[in-house]
Amino acid sequence: MPVTRLVPEEEATGKVRAVYDDIMATRGLARVPNYWKALAANPDYLEATWQNLKVVMRPGRLDRLTKEIIAVAVSATNGCEYCIRSHTDQLKELGLDDAAILEVMGVIDFFNGSNAVSSGLRVPYEPPVYAGRPAQPAGADG
Amino acid sequence: MPVTRLVPEEEATGKVRAVYDDIMATRGLARVPNYWKALAANPDYLEATWQNLKVVMRPGRLDRLTKEIIAVAVSATNGCEYCIRSHTDQLKELGLDDAAILEVMGVIDFFNGSNAVSSGLRVPYEPPVYAGRPAQPAGADG
Amino acid sequence: MPVTRLVPEEEATGKVRAVYDDIMATRGLARVPNYWKALAANPDYLEATWQNLKVVMRPGRLDRLTKEIIAVAVSATNGCEYCIRSHTDQLKELGLDDAAILEVMGVIDFFNGSNAVSSGLRVPYEPPVYAGRPAQPAGADG
Amino acid sequence: MPVTRLVPEEEATGKVRAVYDDIMATRGLARVPNYWKALAANPDYLEATWQNLKVVMRPGRLDRLTKEIIAVAVSATNGCEYCIRSHTDQLKELGLDDAAILEVMGVIDFFNGSNAVSSGLRVPYEPPVYAGRPAQPAGADG
Amino acid sequence: MPVTRLVPEEEATGKVRAVYDDIMATRGLARVPNYWKALAANPDYLEATWQNLKVVMRPGRLDRLTKEIIAVAVSATNGCEYCIRSHTDQLKELGLDDAAILEVMGVIDFFNGSNAVSSGLRVPYEPPVYAGRPAQPAGADG
Amino acid sequence: MPVTRLVPEEEATGKVRAVYDDIMATRGLARVPNYWKALAANPDYLEATWQNLKVVMRPGRLDRLTKEIIAVAVSATNGCEYCIRSHTDQLKELGLDDAAILEVMGVIDFFNGSNAVSSGLRVPYEPPVYAGRPAQPAGADG
Repeated sequence: MPVTRLVPEEEATGKVRAVYDDIMATRGLARVPNYWKALAANPDYLEATWQNLKVVMRPGRLDRLTKEIIAVAVSATNGCEYCIRSHTDQLKELGLDDAAILEVMGVIDFFNGSNAVSSGLRVPYEPPVYAGRPAQPAGADG
Repeated sequence: MPVTRLVPEEEATGKVRAVYDDIMATRGLARVPNYWKALAANPDYLEATWQNLKVVMRPGRLDRLTKEIIAVAVSATNGCEYCIRSHTDQLKELGLDDAAILEVMGVIDFFNGSNAVSSGLRVPYEPPVYAGRPAQPAGADG
Repeated sequence: MPVTRLVPEEEATGKVRAVYDDIMATRGLARVPNYWKALAANPDYLEATWQNLKVVMRPGRLDRLTKEIIAVAVSATNGCEYCIRSHTDQLKELGLDDAAILEVMGVIDFFNGSNAVSSGLRVPYEPPVYAGRPAQPAGADG
Repeated sequence: MPVTRLVPEEEATGKVRAVYDDIMATRGLARVPNYWKALAANPDYLEATWQNLKVVMRPGRLDRLTKEIIAVAVSATNGCEYCIRSHTDQLKELGLDDAAILEVMGVIDFFNGSNAVSSGLRVPYEPPVYAGRPAQPAGADG
Repeated sequence: MPVTRLVPEEEATGKVRAVYDDIMATRGLARVPNYWKALAANPDYLEATWQNLKVVMRPGRLDRLTKEIIAVAVSATNGCEYCIRSHTDQLKELGLDDAAILEVMGVIDFFNGSNAVSSGLRVPYEPPVYAGRPAQPAGADG
Repeated sequence: MPVTRLVPEEEATGKVRAVYDDIMATRGLARVPNYWKALAANPDYLEATWQNLKVVMRPGRLDRLTKEIIAVAVSATNGCEYCIRSHTDQLKELGLDDAAILEVMGVIDFFNGSNAVSSGLRVPYEPPVYAGRPAQPAGADG
């Protein structure tokens, strides 16, 4: 049972109706996902969040698949069940099989581990020194 | 000042020497990054971690750029300074400019926010229902 | 099934009995919430935690509603189901409707997102410079 | 040194200029805070984020002080330095002294601790049973 | 329902078979735990992770019990249900009763709370000054 | 610069004086650590926190070293600099050298990684089935 009431599609009017219609049209969906129904009790917040998502997920320098992979990386790190389900379903929709999803998870695994260790040991960062190139000067907090 | 002593390159012998050499050869580096020097007081752990990194970062279904982007997403979510510096430097090395790095950050921003809200509202997940396709049955915990 | 056994009210004696009675009297409850029953296998820890809660939740400069909102903000950020349920139930008890709870969630959403980005970009902080006021000097780590 | 270049006020044109001006006017500031300068290399993202912030921080059922307190609670939980500095400076601007800020921190302290324990013990939630009122039925996942 | 298919023991061949057999032999188990079955769709990642676990869990300066306690502390802090279940079951197997598990949780509770507060107040660290001993000089970032 | 003023030892009176003296006597210190000076602007909170720490750190089923290791595990997972410094200094005081501290970090590394993966793959937990013993029945949510 969610904390607040999901606003069903048949009750949506005005701003909520417009956002619901835009979500379904943009995504090719026949139903509005529950996340958006949960935001709809506050129509301005629903609208601002949806506009924001359209801006950040729009393909630019990164394609849609890469953006869904970022969503999975963030969601696995935070342990958010809804978001993990939603975005691993998107990865499958975009053609990733189990071995590929595990390839994503392997990278998430490694860096969640090494984040804790480099924070835990307070390792000072220095920019990489490539063979055959001069060293890059460290920044003020490098 | 790091918590434990970084093992300098000139002191590296045996297993540590072999890993240091492999890191520099694999990455085209003239110097061993501090993270690895911090692990070197425990040579077995250093070696296992480096072998593990080689497995997870090897291009497969995902290319190197996508894997570095995952590293940035995890590190920004955890707030790990060393890792953020290290992997945003890699993104720049791989050709991403500031606008592209901000495109990565926009996605990280959105999902860290929505993770907290979907956990905070306990929104139940249901698989997407695409227009023109039958609904997918929910799993036991869908 | 919880990890450790919940100590039922009818088994409570001594220090546990005293804390259980104080919880019910202070909160106007007829039953002891499960969180406290889970701590009761270690009576000193139960007592210290309850004393601590009474100190931090006592209205002072902040009222009870604001303190319950902080509890929800922390719990949504950490994704703790028990705590989210418990403290959103308190918000409803204190009169917040769904739109108001979504107003709380909107703020939690924004700052979980911007936390990841400002950490991810290592943005340096400078104190605000208000129009018509002299700039405040930055601290050592500003 | 931030990861990406901060766009200085004197270089701002078009959409960035409009957002910078709106930030300063809305907040009564003589300078644009660095966080916004860091987003400005991606003008659409800058604009969407600022619009979003205006929606979520607008006083509604909660006043501005309560919303800044939520920002501090989220930022302390995530350990985000920029955000902690920014929003504790706001708390002081809104009149909170050190004792009051510590009152905020005491609540943040308690619930970060109890979040870990209730997750760690997998304590099942049941709605509170108030003295003199019938018990509320538990939801599907209560 | 897990995100990816668990590879059942009767389908395991080659590298997966070898790792499954080593897990059961090393741990005295009759069945392979689901975590490893979830990794098995990517045999190299499965093998690297298992080798890594053997290195880090091998008794050295710390015994097995202390290492399982660390696993519980990390898992409760991250709120990971599988991991909490798995490692609190190990603590019970190693002889800890409910009171002892609560002793572990009490320490986890305290430090999750104080972590948020010391980050939230940006308290500067200085090495301890013991009575009857000269003060230790602070490091560059002490 | 900390967010709130540290209360110096020479200004401590009443309840703050009593806690400061108890901290120095209990720990064998000549100076009060900054964390406690940061809490002292709210004397009741200072006292409740110190009493709580004495309860949870008191040797019981676990010794002092194990409890300091838990503190390091939690602090590295949360990335809290003050707490990492404070508790790794304690580990050194209790006799752990760099190799041993890296042994601690190796375990923290592994489980932060596997926490994200088991959450990210939603792996269902089942109690271990030991060779030569009957399988343990799974709990309601096992």
